Amino acid sequence: MAVRQASLRHRIAEAIDPELHQKPGLSPFNRGVVAAILLLILIGVLETEVHVIRSYGGLMTAAKALLFIFFLIEYLLRLWVSPLNPKVRGMVHFALKPASLLDLAVLISLASPFLGLEAAVFRLLQLLRILRLARLGRYSRGMNLLFEALRSRSTELMLSALMAFSLMLGAATLLYIVEGAVQPQAFGSIPRALWWAVETLTTVGYGDVVPVTPLGRVLAALTALCGIGFIALPTGLLAGAFSDAMRRAREDRLHPHHDPHD
Amino acid sequence: MAVRQASLRHRIAEAIDPELHQKPGLSPFNRGVVAAILLLILIGVLETEVHVIRSYGGLMTAAKALLFIFFLIEYLLRLWVSPLNPKVRGMVHFALKPASLLDLAVLISLASPFLGLEAAVFRLLQLLRILRLARLGRYSRGMNLLFEALRSRSTELMLSALMAFSLMLGAATLLYIVEGAVQPQAFGSIPRALWWAVETLTTVGYGDVVPVTPLGRVLAALTALCGIGFIALPTGLLAGAFSDAMRRAREDRLHPHHDPHD
Amino acid sequence: MAVRQASLRHRIAEAIDPELHQKPGLSPFNRGVVAAILLLILIGVLETEVHVIRSYGGLMTAAKALLFIFFLIEYLLRLWVSPLNPKVRGMVHFALKPASLLDLAVLISLASPFLGLEAAVFRLLQLLRILRLARLGRYSRGMNLLFEALRSRSTELMLSALMAFSLMLGAATLLYIVEGAVQPQAFGSIPRALWWAVETLTTVGYGDVVPVTPLGRVLAALTALCGIGFIALPTGLLAGAFSDAMRRAREDRLHPHHDPHD
Amino acid sequence: MAVRQASLRHRIAEAIDPELHQKPGLSPFNRGVVAAILLLILIGVLETEVHVIRSYGGLMTAAKALLFIFFLIEYLLRLWVSPLNPKVRGMVHFALKPASLLDLAVLISLASPFLGLEAAVFRLLQLLRILRLARLGRYSRGMNLLFEALRSRSTELMLSALMAFSLMLGAATLLYIVEGAVQPQAFGSIPRALWWAVETLTTVGYGDVVPVTPLGRVLAALTALCGIGFIALPTGLLAGAFSDAMRRAREDRLHPHHDPHD
Repeated sequence: MAVRQASLRHRIAEAIDPELHQKPGLSPFNRGVVAAILLLILIGVLETEVHVIRSYGGLMTAAKALLFIFFLIEYLLRLWVSPLNPKVRGMVHFALKPASLLDLAVLISLASPFLGLEAAVFRLLQLLRILRLARLGRYSRGMNLLFEALRSRSTELMLSALMAFSLMLGAATLLYIVEGAVQPQAFGSIPRALWWAVETLTTVGYGDVVPVTPLGRVLAALTALCGIGFIALPTGLLAGAFSDAMRRAREDRLHPHHDPHD
Repeated sequence: MAVRQASLRHRIAEAIDPELHQKPGLSPFNRGVVAAILLLILIGVLETEVHVIRSYGGLMTAAKALLFIFFLIEYLLRLWVSPLNPKVRGMVHFALKPASLLDLAVLISLASPFLGLEAAVFRLLQLLRILRLARLGRYSRGMNLLFEALRSRSTELMLSALMAFSLMLGAATLLYIVEGAVQPQAFGSIPRALWWAVETLTTVGYGDVVPVTPLGRVLAALTALCGIGFIALPTGLLAGAFSDAMRRAREDRLHPHHDPHD
Repeated sequence: MAVRQASLRHRIAEAIDPELHQKPGLSPFNRGVVAAILLLILIGVLETEVHVIRSYGGLMTAAKALLFIFFLIEYLLRLWVSPLNPKVRGMVHFALKPASLLDLAVLISLASPFLGLEAAVFRLLQLLRILRLARLGRYSRGMNLLFEALRSRSTELMLSALMAFSLMLGAATLLYIVEGAVQPQAFGSIPRALWWAVETLTTVGYGDVVPVTPLGRVLAALTALCGIGFIALPTGLLAGAFSDAMRRAREDRLHPHHDPHD
Repeated sequence: MAVRQASLRHRIAEAIDPELHQKPGLSPFNRGVVAAILLLILIGVLETEVHVIRSYGGLMTAAKALLFIFFLIEYLLRLWVSPLNPKVRGMVHFALKPASLLDLAVLISLASPFLGLEAAVFRLLQLLRILRLARLGRYSRGMNLLFEALRSRSTELMLSALMAFSLMLGAATLLYIVEGAVQPQAFGSIPRALWWAVETLTTVGYGDVVPVTPLGRVLAALTALCGIGFIALPTGLLAGAFSDAMRRAREDRLHPHHDPHD
């Protein structure tokens, strides 16, 4: 009986704990967890909208009750099998991990109908749990490539951010000087002009704040043209870094132990 | 006589069926089909505009009648020669293919003056037929390069989509918390705030919904700056993937059977 | 005396005709021509603005008179030395070239005060003359790289344009179906909806036309997200093509006659 | 005693002058200078906003007084140790350098409460000092890569700027011709239409100026589609150049003195 239970416990541990999972990819159970998290987030998003609550309020309450039961069972199972993972020192150690505390907070938020905003935030934080699951499985290689490329060019990306910051501040100061007197509401201080500078340099361009004097428009046009470089520089850097990382990965496959990584 | 007709049927089959066409590129007949589809789509687009109907209604009805005759003949010819393609098991098998049923639906939509919206949709779906024709001929190599590059980086593109989705949801939740009370129409629920988040992160920036509180603007500026990465990351990934695919294609040409594809 | 004049004519021909110019780059005379064209275009731009005419009308008339004299002398000199270029069969052949006729049209537009719009267009076309001058000199290698990269990926760029066109048409049709009844002015026909689709997919986002129904906004958000790919795909293709062209140019320098160009 | 003071002076010189600093990166003292400059700029930005002045005016005056003392001491120390740098010919030579004069101007602007706008500009110029500090230390390699990539493709970037300029002028002229009579305020002259052309081609799209005639919208849609190329061309060029520069840097590491740089 003890052997059988231990065997069941091991099988559950293998299905639940991604680090103990043998096959590549997520286990069917963890795919279900991802689906449940996405459903919970969807409900969290929709239940802030009064029109949806009115029409589907009952349905959503029922779904939340089911999700509460699912996450409760999942939490207890994970707690039960946690000692089988060599990195975990007992159930208490597992229960006090930040990820486990977050799972507990989500459970409480599902059980107590009085929590509003806090519940929404807890549930959003569960997106991190999906990212954590994605780190394992077949996404880990892709994530490594992304982060390696970003890290290998971190200095250049920092420098282009510094240049962008200078450009943004310079443009805001100039527009504050030129348009401040004409449109005090929009350009009456550098912080206000920065709002315009950000939406221009990122090419968002809401249009709620627009220069009206001829000189202001000339400066704004120059700023918008600089905005091209603002986008082109980091994009080009990332493109070069990805191209470099892919070439390196391929050369390593062809000639292992030959090409020194920097 | 039978030989002669068979020969004519083979010649027609070669001109109509791109898979039986010997020379590179599309046959003159199929170029005419592409032109007829584009004309049909143009008419479908224009006839939704009342001002155009008033001025050129007669001309467009005549053009549609001619296109009906052209597509009817083309449909019957394709049906007639379909058994010559070894992949097709008889005319009935050909007639029941989804592509043939769509062609039939377009024919019916041209013949019946009562169909409005459905006709427009059928005709748009014919764009797929142009893409299908483009798959063959000289575009096939280019299409392979595009899809191979997209597939080789599908994991990284999925991950950047997941990050973008998290960012979008996070920005919408924050703005809902900060601006929800001030602008209930625009930010009164997370789904409403998502509309703002999408137009900001994609740098579209219609400006119909704009934060007005200082804190809301600070958060929106940070979101817009993140929008740069939102565009730069997939663009950089695609650029790296295309660069990689082109290099691989060239190396294969230089040293065939030497470089293992992953 | 005849020898001396011929020598002067040759020296002028060398200074004026970029194809006969010996040294790299533009001759000082042709640099002056570029400056005069840019000045003429600047005047053409500014003299459409009533406020500028009022303040600086006299100055601009004087500048145009000087430019007329300069371009007249330049035209006559070019005509005189044209037979020295082996590609030109006599002065009449030179005078009837489209480029020479355009120069003449600019001269006439400068002399006759009655020409308005036509003069502006003639002057803008002179930008082509600057591009023609740029083709020679040190810009020719850069231009070759640009055009070679564009040509080498023309199939893929065409395909991505075809996909973009389908996407644009599909988005416009959907929004016409969903928003047409609510906002007939903006979405009452597919051509009208196309205006919205273009400004959304290119991420311009003026905001003069915005969907207001929930379903319309969901579709518009999906369209805006597709707009990212709309920008990322051609940018990535160009980046890959440039990267490829630069690598090829460098390998040719290292190992000439070894690497077959496709 | 003299030896000891000289030793102290040398130690201070090493901490203050980045060119005399032995270890990689900035000295702790210069990190403090960067922080002080950023704080000064932050105060300069915030003190233009009346709401901030009202709430935190006293705090900011105190911070400025402390920063004045800090920069005064720093200025005097730099002046004192400047002769130890072999590139500097005495204290007067150092004091008359543009960078030192700017530091002095910032000091004066901090001491005199009457300077407003000039003070803001002086402080912004201090961003250059941060960039100057960044040039040394570990950012120098990244900066070299950025500038080398930009310089290696300067011809192509200039050409794409020339094309963009032609496109912008052409679009503005066409819209002036088509929309000028309908919207004289927005398109009544080419300089006015240029404002629209810049915000369209850069995809900023404020929406304050939008064509309303059908032909104007067709032309504007084509312009917006060209705007994609306007962004894609320089981005692709930069991506290719960065990819090329990174590959070159890596090959140099692998096979030094083998690959000739162009």
